[in-house]
Amino acid sequence: MYELMKKLYPICRSITGDGVRDTLNIIKEIIPIKIHEVPSGTKAFDWVVPKEWNIKDAYIKNSKGEKIVDFRVSNLHVLNYSIPINTTVTLDELRKHTYTLLDHPDWIPYVTSYYAENWGFCMSHKQYEKLEDDIYEVVIDSTLEDGSLTYGELFIKGESNEEVLFSTYLCHPSLCNDNLSGVVLTTFLAKLVMGMKPFYSYRFLFIPETIGSIIWLSRNEDKISKIKHGLVVTCVGHSKGMTYKRSRRGNAEIDKVVEKVLLDSGHSFEIIGFLLPESDERQYCSLGFDLPVGSLMRIPYGHFPEYHTSADDLDLVKPIHLEESLDRYMDVIFILENNGIYLSTNPKCEPQLGRRGLYRTISKPSSEISAQAVFWFLNLADGTNSLLDISLQSGIDFKQIKETSGLLIDKGLLIKSRGETLG
Amino acid sequence: MYELMKKLYPICRSITGDGVRDTLNIIKEIIPIKIHEVPSGTKAFDWVVPKEWNIKDAYIKNSKGEKIVDFRVSNLHVLNYSIPINTTVTLDELRKHTYTLLDHPDWIPYVTSYYAENWGFCMSHKQYEKLEDDIYEVVIDSTLEDGSLTYGELFIKGESNEEVLFSTYLCHPSLCNDNLSGVVLTTFLAKLVMGMKPFYSYRFLFIPETIGSIIWLSRNEDKISKIKHGLVVTCVGHSKGMTYKRSRRGNAEIDKVVEKVLLDSGHSFEIIGFLLPESDERQYCSLGFDLPVGSLMRIPYGHFPEYHTSADDLDLVKPIHLEESLDRYMDVIFILENNGIYLSTNPKCEPQLGRRGLYRTISKPSSEISAQAVFWFLNLADGTNSLLDISLQSGIDFKQIKETSGLLIDKGLLIKSRGETLG
Amino acid sequence: MYELMKKLYPICRSITGDGVRDTLNIIKEIIPIKIHEVPSGTKAFDWVVPKEWNIKDAYIKNSKGEKIVDFRVSNLHVLNYSIPINTTVTLDELRKHTYTLLDHPDWIPYVTSYYAENWGFCMSHKQYEKLEDDIYEVVIDSTLEDGSLTYGELFIKGESNEEVLFSTYLCHPSLCNDNLSGVVLTTFLAKLVMGMKPFYSYRFLFIPETIGSIIWLSRNEDKISKIKHGLVVTCVGHSKGMTYKRSRRGNAEIDKVVEKVLLDSGHSFEIIGFLLPESDERQYCSLGFDLPVGSLMRIPYGHFPEYHTSADDLDLVKPIHLEESLDRYMDVIFILENNGIYLSTNPKCEPQLGRRGLYRTISKPSSEISAQAVFWFLNLADGTNSLLDISLQSGIDFKQIKETSGLLIDKGLLIKSRGETLG
Repeated sequence: MYELMKKLYPICRSITGDGVRDTLNIIKEIIPIKIHEVPSGTKAFDWVVPKEWNIKDAYIKNSKGEKIVDFRVSNLHVLNYSIPINTTVTLDELRKHTYTLLDHPDWIPYVTSYYAENWGFCMSHKQYEKLEDDIYEVVIDSTLEDGSLTYGELFIKGESNEEVLFSTYLCHPSLCNDNLSGVVLTTFLAKLVMGMKPFYSYRFLFIPETIGSIIWLSRNEDKISKIKHGLVVTCVGHSKGMTYKRSRRGNAEIDKVVEKVLLDSGHSFEIIGFLLPESDERQYCSLGFDLPVGSLMRIPYGHFPEYHTSADDLDLVKPIHLEESLDRYMDVIFILENNGIYLSTNPKCEPQLGRRGLYRTISKPSSEISAQAVFWFLNLADGTNSLLDISLQSGIDFKQIKETSGLLIDKGLLIKSRGETLG
Repeated sequence: MYELMKKLYPICRSITGDGVRDTLNIIKEIIPIKIHEVPSGTKAFDWVVPKEWNIKDAYIKNSKGEKIVDFRVSNLHVLNYSIPINTTVTLDELRKHTYTLLDHPDWIPYVTSYYAENWGFCMSHKQYEKLEDDIYEVVIDSTLEDGSLTYGELFIKGESNEEVLFSTYLCHPSLCNDNLSGVVLTTFLAKLVMGMKPFYSYRFLFIPETIGSIIWLSRNEDKISKIKHGLVVTCVGHSKGMTYKRSRRGNAEIDKVVEKVLLDSGHSFEIIGFLLPESDERQYCSLGFDLPVGSLMRIPYGHFPEYHTSADDLDLVKPIHLEESLDRYMDVIFILENNGIYLSTNPKCEPQLGRRGLYRTISKPSSEISAQAVFWFLNLADGTNSLLDISLQSGIDFKQIKETSGLLIDKGLLIKSRGETLG
Repeated sequence: MYELMKKLYPICRSITGDGVRDTLNIIKEIIPIKIHEVPSGTKAFDWVVPKEWNIKDAYIKNSKGEKIVDFRVSNLHVLNYSIPINTTVTLDELRKHTYTLLDHPDWIPYVTSYYAENWGFCMSHKQYEKLEDDIYEVVIDSTLEDGSLTYGELFIKGESNEEVLFSTYLCHPSLCNDNLSGVVLTTFLAKLVMGMKPFYSYRFLFIPETIGSIIWLSRNEDKISKIKHGLVVTCVGHSKGMTYKRSRRGNAEIDKVVEKVLLDSGHSFEIIGFLLPESDERQYCSLGFDLPVGSLMRIPYGHFPEYHTSADDLDLVKPIHLEESLDRYMDVIFILENNGIYLSTNPKCEPQLGRRGLYRTISKPSSEISAQAVFWFLNLADGTNSLLDISLQSGIDFKQIKETSGLLIDKGLLIKSRGETLG
């Protein structure tokens, strides 16, 4: 994953344009995504696909002809979606088009202006303070023209038509935690699911934030009712422990599944409500859809100082944290795939476990976790509790609960009562 | 308010009599209350209007002819509702009819005997200890005769027939926090409501405690179903922060409204359950009515040492605290008047806010409270949540939520779905 | 109770056999239990009554002819349910059949092998470590033959056919807290109930753990629906404060009753969920029955170090703690017997209490607990709240709530609305 991130890092992405296309083509070398192009002007609910933005170069030169700000050094230097400009300006004029960060004078901020035509430069506050009274040449060699918006999609058919959605956004330029980390994790997660024979069908979306999910939803209203669980994949490379942001519903199966995964992980974690929506879950969970889509992150966007600055770079994300996050996502899939409702075949008193080799025959003052799992089953397998419920109530690891269910089924003590889905 | 309190302070009130009439007539100079007289002997549910009590003078003279206790010094010196007496007694006999406070030897207690005929004197424990073995002349120049019980009422018609009730009690003599503070606040609150064009109709009651609310309820059973919200106004002049005592229902709209007002006030406050009912909410919330009536105080009756003693005087109540309390009451009215349920007109994905000038067009790593309010609306305006619910869930000030709703209505993104009432 | 415990202590009990019979016959001298015999081989749901086990003697002799382990010193020395053996073994062979406690080298563990035929000895780890390389004579003079399983039952008919169940297990040999304490408490509790004219009928079971409750349930399926409340009586002699383990339902009346008893007791206590079932409540609360049966203990089985060892002896249990536990059980019965739902006859406003002598006629700044109880009644006696609910919500002692209800009924302010039961 980290290698892929290094490869994607230099590309200047935005919500449309070749940066997105290049990124999707590199991903396509790993998983067979389909690349969709949606023409500028296409309507999507209250929105319209904007013009396509591309950029070749941009710089500011002082009167001595020195490039004092250069797009080739960092693609964050340009206000994302800047209209083309090629002119000379006074210092005062330049300042009106300049964005800096007072609190972090060494960092370049990431700033965009998608839906209002504008031009501008971003720089470190130290650079800004060195600007002298001069006449500057400002060049942004960009185009903003009719074209299309590009997104990638991979659908993996499972036994069931019901779907699990993983959505990540790829519109940010050279920013690693937010959100190249999400892009590379989603890519490798999809690769792992391709190697499974899953119960659910799985859909992976690589889209520009906000407009991308709105377009996908508007083009796929017929598929929406099939989505039973979903996660927005973002900010999964930071060193901080996991944070789960619940779906709008708050008590969907995906919410319980992720909570259990985090509990079983043994690491510290945080669960937050659907408070201030900031990414694509805002669209998936909008009133008209209200899909069970949460977001599993390491640290939420906006909650780390490097957020949307040049400091969210390759050093901020560590391979080990990407791996850990991928493990948690796979744990989520494991529970989703293996959850089910089972019924005890022996509801009146407990069955004799010793006779079936399910219980120690010699009583000793010790506690055995496996016997506990059996007793929990016998107590909760009444047709209302899923394996996940039993594992949440007992506090026992989901994998062990799953194994115990297999053992009890083999002994004829449990039968499955699962229909198409639990969703 | 404080000026009115100073004017009312010297009057000797009780549950009936000229003290109440004089008080109501002074209030009538400010707001046009109607003064009701209910004859002694009138039945009201399990109760009967008692005889009317009036008092001209009372004193204890020692054998030297010195007045050692004098009603004209403090009207608390007389057991409230004392029958007339004019006799001489021994020290022993006098002591049987004397009430003092051991814990606060300088204070005169306030003691009543409404429903059992008795006579007595209250004095400071220091006075009590100085009493010598002597023959005392005790005179209480009172009358206890058929007459009437007096209360005041002001009804302000609003757009709706549904009512908000503010009830305060005025039976206590020279006691300020409990409850001249409630009397003067209710007076000025009514005056402010008279200056509004309210949605709700408003009813203000100035009654003797317990018997007054019982009589009002028994005479107005036809109006009771119109009362959608109510508060008992008492103990609002103390320096302590606000305390809200929930209605018996506990989750009525008034309970949520007051909680929000206190949260938004920025001051510390306390919310207590409908535990030990002590004032007129006991009648309004009795099983047969169960009205949504709470009580918003600064400090509950019985929870300050000066309660029902001569120390609950003009020094205990400060104008600033009366003003603050009035502000909170007006905040309650503001929310009641402005609450409503709204529906998003764009349930599928969020509307494009930037195009409507509702969102910054330049993204920058900052947080804007107003954008947050918009997103909360888009997320909760599903026809089940009122403005109050949205403001409670978001933690955003009600006034800002109200303003945001206006903005969104102007932009065509919200429509009102409020019927006659939310009560 | 302690005297009875001393008498029962030396007897070697197991899940079947003469030890159980002897124990039941001694109990029968105190209360008229019926002794049931269920033949080996009888089916009970998934279970079968095992062969009957009896033992006369057992020892290990070294080659010098010295008894180094002797059943007559402690009946814990024999693996409970050992098959007969009379042979010589090497040290290695002996070790395979020996059970000790590393953590408590002075204590003999209590170990059983009911459902897998085996033989063995238990000893202190110190004894074990002294075993020399030798040829040992091992003798267990036991029988394991067709016979019967024995249990005791006492039914006390009350006014109602609905039943309260107290179940205790008597299969453990010389172990005091677990569970001679339960056996003796149940005996004396039954004796006390025999002296009452109870509303409920009461059933007391003295059974071997697990198999006993399974057998009882399988033979009495017609009676099961009559059981409205129940407790498993175990571990009630330890010095620790009370612990209540809720029924599987968790919010049954018995759960609320015991909680209230413990709250009113003024001692510290703990309430635990129906987490890891370990005794007969596992059967009573099995999915097919789900009876409202909890367990009131001093300290749960397995939570004290002496559990299932020779250290759970007559010194561990103190008469005072048995007495306290019995008091709590009687408190439970008191609430069960006296609980009921009452209706206020005066729902509109409060009744005039002073006129009925239910309220002080002189108001004074003091608080009176009895007046509080009256107000709670007036506020909650709406036909949905039982005395127990009122006492839980008010925090007032159940006995006082009960007395207050009597007072209010006498004054015509309350009427009973109790049918056959509240269960």
